[in-house]
Amino acid sequence: MSTLIRGGLVVNATGAVPADVLVDGEKIAALLAPGFPIEADRTVDASGKYVIPGGVDAHTHMEMPFGGTFSADTFATGTTAAAWGGTTTIIDFAVQVKGTSLLTTLDKWHAKADGNCAVDYGFHMIVSDVNETSLKEMESCIDAGVNTFKMFMAYPGVFYATDGEILRAMQKARETGATIMMHAENGIAIDQLVAQALAAGRTDPVEHGLTRPAELEGEATSRAITLAKVTGSPLYVVHLSAAQALDAVARARDTGQNVFAETCPQYLYLSLEDLARPDFEGAKYVASPPLRPREHQSELWRGLRTNDLSVVSTDHCPFCFKDQKELGRGDFSKIPNGMPGVEHRVDLLHQGVVKGEISLERWVEISSTTPARMFGLHPRKGVIAPGADADIVVYDPQTRQTISAATHHMNVDYSAYEGMELTGRVDTVLSRGRVVVDGSGFHGAVGHGRFLARELNQYLI
Amino acid sequence: MSTLIRGGLVVNATGAVPADVLVDGEKIAALLAPGFPIEADRTVDASGKYVIPGGVDAHTHMEMPFGGTFSADTFATGTTAAAWGGTTTIIDFAVQVKGTSLLTTLDKWHAKADGNCAVDYGFHMIVSDVNETSLKEMESCIDAGVNTFKMFMAYPGVFYATDGEILRAMQKARETGATIMMHAENGIAIDQLVAQALAAGRTDPVEHGLTRPAELEGEATSRAITLAKVTGSPLYVVHLSAAQALDAVARARDTGQNVFAETCPQYLYLSLEDLARPDFEGAKYVASPPLRPREHQSELWRGLRTNDLSVVSTDHCPFCFKDQKELGRGDFSKIPNGMPGVEHRVDLLHQGVVKGEISLERWVEISSTTPARMFGLHPRKGVIAPGADADIVVYDPQTRQTISAATHHMNVDYSAYEGMELTGRVDTVLSRGRVVVDGSGFHGAVGHGRFLARELNQYLI
Amino acid sequence: MSTLIRGGLVVNATGAVPADVLVDGEKIAALLAPGFPIEADRTVDASGKYVIPGGVDAHTHMEMPFGGTFSADTFATGTTAAAWGGTTTIIDFAVQVKGTSLLTTLDKWHAKADGNCAVDYGFHMIVSDVNETSLKEMESCIDAGVNTFKMFMAYPGVFYATDGEILRAMQKARETGATIMMHAENGIAIDQLVAQALAAGRTDPVEHGLTRPAELEGEATSRAITLAKVTGSPLYVVHLSAAQALDAVARARDTGQNVFAETCPQYLYLSLEDLARPDFEGAKYVASPPLRPREHQSELWRGLRTNDLSVVSTDHCPFCFKDQKELGRGDFSKIPNGMPGVEHRVDLLHQGVVKGEISLERWVEISSTTPARMFGLHPRKGVIAPGADADIVVYDPQTRQTISAATHHMNVDYSAYEGMELTGRVDTVLSRGRVVVDGSGFHGAVGHGRFLARELNQYLI
Amino acid sequence: MSTLIRGGLVVNATGAVPADVLVDGEKIAALLAPGFPIEADRTVDASGKYVIPGGVDAHTHMEMPFGGTFSADTFATGTTAAAWGGTTTIIDFAVQVKGTSLLTTLDKWHAKADGNCAVDYGFHMIVSDVNETSLKEMESCIDAGVNTFKMFMAYPGVFYATDGEILRAMQKARETGATIMMHAENGIAIDQLVAQALAAGRTDPVEHGLTRPAELEGEATSRAITLAKVTGSPLYVVHLSAAQALDAVARARDTGQNVFAETCPQYLYLSLEDLARPDFEGAKYVASPPLRPREHQSELWRGLRTNDLSVVSTDHCPFCFKDQKELGRGDFSKIPNGMPGVEHRVDLLHQGVVKGEISLERWVEISSTTPARMFGLHPRKGVIAPGADADIVVYDPQTRQTISAATHHMNVDYSAYEGMELTGRVDTVLSRGRVVVDGSGFHGAVGHGRFLARELNQYLI
Ligand SMILES: [Zn+2]
Ligand SMILES: [Zn+2]
Ligand SMILES: [Zn+2]
Ligand SMILES: [Zn+2]
Ligand SMILES: [Zn+2]
Ligand SMILES: [Zn+2]
Ligand SMILES: [Zn+2]
Ligand SMILES: [Zn+2]
Repeated sequence: MSTLIRGGLVVNATGAVPADVLVDGEKIAALLAPGFPIEADRTVDASGKYVIPGGVDAHTHMEMPFGGTFSADTFATGTTAAAWGGTTTIIDFAVQVKGTSLLTTLDKWHAKADGNCAVDYGFHMIVSDVNETSLKEMESCIDAGVNTFKMFMAYPGVFYATDGEILRAMQKARETGATIMMHAENGIAIDQLVAQALAAGRTDPVEHGLTRPAELEGEATSRAITLAKVTGSPLYVVHLSAAQALDAVARARDTGQNVFAETCPQYLYLSLEDLARPDFEGAKYVASPPLRPREHQSELWRGLRTNDLSVVSTDHCPFCFKDQKELGRGDFSKIPNGMPGVEHRVDLLHQGVVKGEISLERWVEISSTTPARMFGLHPRKGVIAPGADADIVVYDPQTRQTISAATHHMNVDYSAYEGMELTGRVDTVLSRGRVVVDGSGFHGAVGHGRFLARELNQYLI
Repeated sequence: MSTLIRGGLVVNATGAVPADVLVDGEKIAALLAPGFPIEADRTVDASGKYVIPGGVDAHTHMEMPFGGTFSADTFATGTTAAAWGGTTTIIDFAVQVKGTSLLTTLDKWHAKADGNCAVDYGFHMIVSDVNETSLKEMESCIDAGVNTFKMFMAYPGVFYATDGEILRAMQKARETGATIMMHAENGIAIDQLVAQALAAGRTDPVEHGLTRPAELEGEATSRAITLAKVTGSPLYVVHLSAAQALDAVARARDTGQNVFAETCPQYLYLSLEDLARPDFEGAKYVASPPLRPREHQSELWRGLRTNDLSVVSTDHCPFCFKDQKELGRGDFSKIPNGMPGVEHRVDLLHQGVVKGEISLERWVEISSTTPARMFGLHPRKGVIAPGADADIVVYDPQTRQTISAATHHMNVDYSAYEGMELTGRVDTVLSRGRVVVDGSGFHGAVGHGRFLARELNQYLI
Repeated sequence: MSTLIRGGLVVNATGAVPADVLVDGEKIAALLAPGFPIEADRTVDASGKYVIPGGVDAHTHMEMPFGGTFSADTFATGTTAAAWGGTTTIIDFAVQVKGTSLLTTLDKWHAKADGNCAVDYGFHMIVSDVNETSLKEMESCIDAGVNTFKMFMAYPGVFYATDGEILRAMQKARETGATIMMHAENGIAIDQLVAQALAAGRTDPVEHGLTRPAELEGEATSRAITLAKVTGSPLYVVHLSAAQALDAVARARDTGQNVFAETCPQYLYLSLEDLARPDFEGAKYVASPPLRPREHQSELWRGLRTNDLSVVSTDHCPFCFKDQKELGRGDFSKIPNGMPGVEHRVDLLHQGVVKGEISLERWVEISSTTPARMFGLHPRKGVIAPGADADIVVYDPQTRQTISAATHHMNVDYSAYEGMELTGRVDTVLSRGRVVVDGSGFHGAVGHGRFLARELNQYLI
Repeated sequence: MSTLIRGGLVVNATGAVPADVLVDGEKIAALLAPGFPIEADRTVDASGKYVIPGGVDAHTHMEMPFGGTFSADTFATGTTAAAWGGTTTIIDFAVQVKGTSLLTTLDKWHAKADGNCAVDYGFHMIVSDVNETSLKEMESCIDAGVNTFKMFMAYPGVFYATDGEILRAMQKARETGATIMMHAENGIAIDQLVAQALAAGRTDPVEHGLTRPAELEGEATSRAITLAKVTGSPLYVVHLSAAQALDAVARARDTGQNVFAETCPQYLYLSLEDLARPDFEGAKYVASPPLRPREHQSELWRGLRTNDLSVVSTDHCPFCFKDQKELGRGDFSKIPNGMPGVEHRVDLLHQGVVKGEISLERWVEISSTTPARMFGLHPRKGVIAPGADADIVVYDPQTRQTISAATHHMNVDYSAYEGMELTGRVDTVLSRGRVVVDGSGFHGAVGHGRFLARELNQYLI
């Protein structure tokens, strides 16, 4: 089955050209000058629209266990919502429980996702337990296409790794070409501040933000960068939220160190004020790192322009307000950490184009091309080019929409962006050649999505 | 006439894919999955080779008047040599003489180039005289496709512009969307040092370097950046050679200011030691800014990796050793400033790939894609995509070659890289669909090259 | 005649000790443990008060010619006001007119000051004309105790020196041990902005501030620092007003370069809002660099704490509102540049102690000790120690006062601090052993003050 | 008993004046103009010599328990050696053992030192165990004159404090005005490197240096600074050895944060090359942080000039080569950490004056005045002023000496500076009015030295 996408503006990271795109089976077969005489089984009219590579969301948590509950989206619901939003690849996190094996963990996550995804997916591995065995298992993970290992400088007693453990994992990364991903907050210091707040009876959601000061994200980021420098490991800082952390990343990058960072839409659009919403509403906005005071937002947009922030992922980790977020009434530290977002990343970033924060090309780059290169998916993903997977979004830049939990497709009972009006929306989505979303609805299928064994980081300098 | 380039690895700035390229007339008609069934009048076998967008050399000086003589390459010889070296676009500098009109100057340069170029060409305008008339004329130049204006903080009495003049030109740039290009050396201070050296009887070519300290390039670069900030003008620093200047650029870029810089192959491969060669041989290496102590080289390579240096141009400005460079025997300040290079830029940068300094993609980006975007030529130039001009180089990454004046095609009696061995060489070159160079020789024609009226800077953030 | 100052707290830059001070003739003869048994002709009771070295104001302009008028204080009135305010040393600027000799200039200034000063005084030399003769004359000035040479990067056509001239003067400074003082604003660029403002009919005093942006002070400061680095000359940046300039100074000082800066009380307490006062009142606040937006103030206080600002001088240069400032009605560029202040520096800085901005010791250091060391007056001035000149202020830290033109002693018809309430005031002032001010009034005499031939900079690192 | 020191040059931190010093009993009674007519019981001739405040060594470890042994100097031998070297005050470290009380610890240290010291002494407290009790006890320590608390980011399992513990102690410091002293090395990461080295059979002393990279000192220093910023605590970084750490300190100080640092003579004069001496000789140079590559030395000297390094202490912690250092044969990690030095600090820093690295005043400031102010001993110590303790050194700047274990007075069988020739030596030393050292030998007495209950930090900005 072939498809010809006619009349659109093909936007790649380095420029936009009017071109027709011929899809043959699961792959892009050709980019053609507009009107190039060729036949196809089906034609999609993209006149007046952008034709962009499908979004790559490099940071999601589907049905993730957290404090006795699970994030509310399954791989099925979450990847379906992703497709609706123009994201055709997700990379989710397999979570090693301390004392268990990385390979067993990976098997477990394969079992969860296999046959349950509407779009293609890969895995990162969260390493909670650094020891001779797990270091050895990292090599097997890499062979199995999972070569990015997330560690935590926060969450002592759960995911927390000591600087010594980080050092050892980074040495292994240096040796194998893997990349270390870092949740960079000084959790040891934060835990003291949390305990002090609770002891003083300060229990509201806003305290989640106040006990995790931006300086402690900056500190941890600097520390991770130094450890990466000492070992020679590539470092990818996840969900960077604070100007101090951005500053640390920018300085390291100026020296040519392989340090990269992502931010998330919530840090670009929401703030500490949302965490302070009354009536426990703030709980909807509890994630770590926390939403920051508003003045950090413009710094993050600037970081996206300068490429000190190279990727925008969602850290999609939805918990319903009812029953889940409510576990933390009276004790903010018990609120499950995480926010929904996988469906709106492409739209929210397009809003940055509309407002003049970023260029059209940069929109594609941070939402698709760079994550694909960073996580070894290029040229399968992240580009409109012959031979690439036909993961394509026809994007309508003019139509307006309003975000609402009433209409979104994620399995969660609220939206962090409820009522927000956006210009632009997804028109048609192809996943490996199959039209999975168009004006008439969802035509994809759970099970269509396949596991992506990834190459090593293709974005190193 | 159509051409099919089969079996190569198409390298664009964001990634490499095996693909066939169909050229129809002057344009790229299609990128096709390898072996895609299609016919063409002619086939080029690119197996085992790279297929890259033709080089864009954004800084050349053909037959430029300088101190009573002219640079030795005409548009005919210079663009022919460019083609031999895989460069299919040059942007040369029209030079306003003080007291004359910008538009007349532009006419004069059109007259020189028109019908005399083997590849496409555009112009920048050197503004030597800032006044109400010339500021007004800048608008007409922009309308005529010349929207980049070079100014000099060096060469008092010749090209030198005061900070007040720079400010006014930058205000106009801000107003019109033009970009100011800057030769950033503190010429006022340098002229004192030069006078002192001559007065002290220090007349050898190496004094050219010693009287132009790197700090004074750093200073001028900082100053230009501040003036750009005050006015809101984009700034492009030409031929950056010193770590101090790079540092100033990097800091400005960290803040999100539209500041860009190019370096040149001579600063990456040659050094002050060459300027100190005995028997007046150093004169061959006299250009401004001067070649720097060797330790600056690794900083510049790093800058290319971090994108604080975004472009590599040649500043091709050849003067024969005999009769021209010799004008400065006994007085280094009389040596014509400039070095040949237009023919070897693509090869010399490929050497950076071979040595692991830069990636394959980055090679294409700095030698073609970014200059095309920076100077408003995208998507005509700088990318292998449907609709783009069929300026294509088939590059053989394995074959070795040795640079020599005996074999080069530039009209100059020496090579700055004489005897240097390189891995990789240009195999076939298409300029707007025409094969101008292949294994059997040069098949282009003077007059084939056309003037490129350029868009505004497409690389602003 | 001997004087014993009993019961006070002697505050030197490195600490405060209760001690009695014995003055014998013009000198301090002894520092004594409190109550040490010794006789003197006269006793001053300093109980509950500070005993501090007399203030050293290193930047004043008495009867300075400016645009056809003269600053309103003569050496007689200005030094008398200084004494009232606890300043027992001033360093004034001799002003070379282009085309005249430095030595003749110095003679002229000696003629003005000789026999007319109430407190001791020295001179800096403003170099307006750099040439072989004046460079040679610098040496004679140094021999004559004038070893600090001020240059201007502003005021083209008047005091402005080119970077080449600055370079030459700095080379001479390097050679002789002299220090270059710099008025660091990019006057060439500023003049364009001024001309544009006037052409656009923006003529009010506030335009003085708006046409001299802080960035252009930062730029000039950086440039001066680079020229100082290239030549090896010590650099003293006068009247630093902008955070950008402070940042440049701080970075240079971090590297160990001999770069120093002073600020002035007006930049600590007044702001652009004062320049914007209606009814031409803003003219009272016109000085260069201009008063800055309020947010610069806290940066300057910080700079005083970190010693990136080492000295506070007044740049005292009073022009009466009537007849003098009024010359600029309808054209802000014609308003004489300068503000009165010599009388209130010590009090205004003590206010910083009261508010917790600086320590007691730091107050003494920035107002007396460091300027004495910087300008080669130590240990004659700037310290309470045996052998030092008995320039001593007994300061009452508790009594409150209100600044007003009605009560001040400067010869100018307004006060920039009219109505400002301060805690602390000068109680008794000795100049070389003579009580010149006490509770009963002024007991000094014009003619008491002597010229100070100064040593070279004693504050170099 | 009174003593008159005649004819010397009194050098204080802000300047030098010829003056006579009258000592009455234990105190300085007067500073007098040279030749001032006064009688005394005894006269010391200081002609041609410097009269400086006695040295304050703020970092010593007498008879300190370490890995089953004790540092080799007792309070008696160590303070006697200090006196010989012109140091009249030491501040030693009381060492809390985990699980014990701070107050009991303090008692224990008082018991060791009481009646055993030849010069005055104070204590810092090493806090190994942060809990409710010890935090409360900090207040009692402060009341008892011990208000500086040292913590370790190194030595896990021994002294190591977590970032949470540091945070809590810093909060207490902020609350009480205490200062936190920090051993800033990332011991958690270092321990991995040490284990890896030993596992790989790399057991020589030089491995001590190689497993403690400078970056990990820089990191820990940055981290401590951030924790200090978050809490508002003053921070004093002990024994700073690495350029990276200095850079972190300099940047914090530029912002006006109360961050201070000391270095030690061994980091100024010795290097990693000494650690690499053959035949286990390197063991003599094992201390933590380790001696660094030679290029760090000039950075440290620069830091001393810029005041980013404010103090030089010795970290005197001697272990004999025989029997003590030898414990680490075959396992560098078992070599007792520490080097002797208390006797030579004043001389070694004077050598910096001789070489032009620092000024005469700066020598006094970093070796006496600033440590006195930093540790709340001013104006008793650190200054030649009436009322101050008569801790005075008459220093002969001309006489040459050679350092040797054969002649030094420290109780240790080697000198780290064996054979080093110095210009200048201590001539006469007074401790609280008593001549304890002069040309004829040692006249002090164990037991003469008294405990100094210290004020809070007087050096805060
Ligand atoms: Zn995380
Ligand atoms: Zn996450
Ligand atoms: Zn140039
Ligand atoms: Zn050029
Ligand atoms: Zn000035
Ligand atoms: Zn002035
Ligand atoms: Zn330590
Ligand atoms: Zn120690």
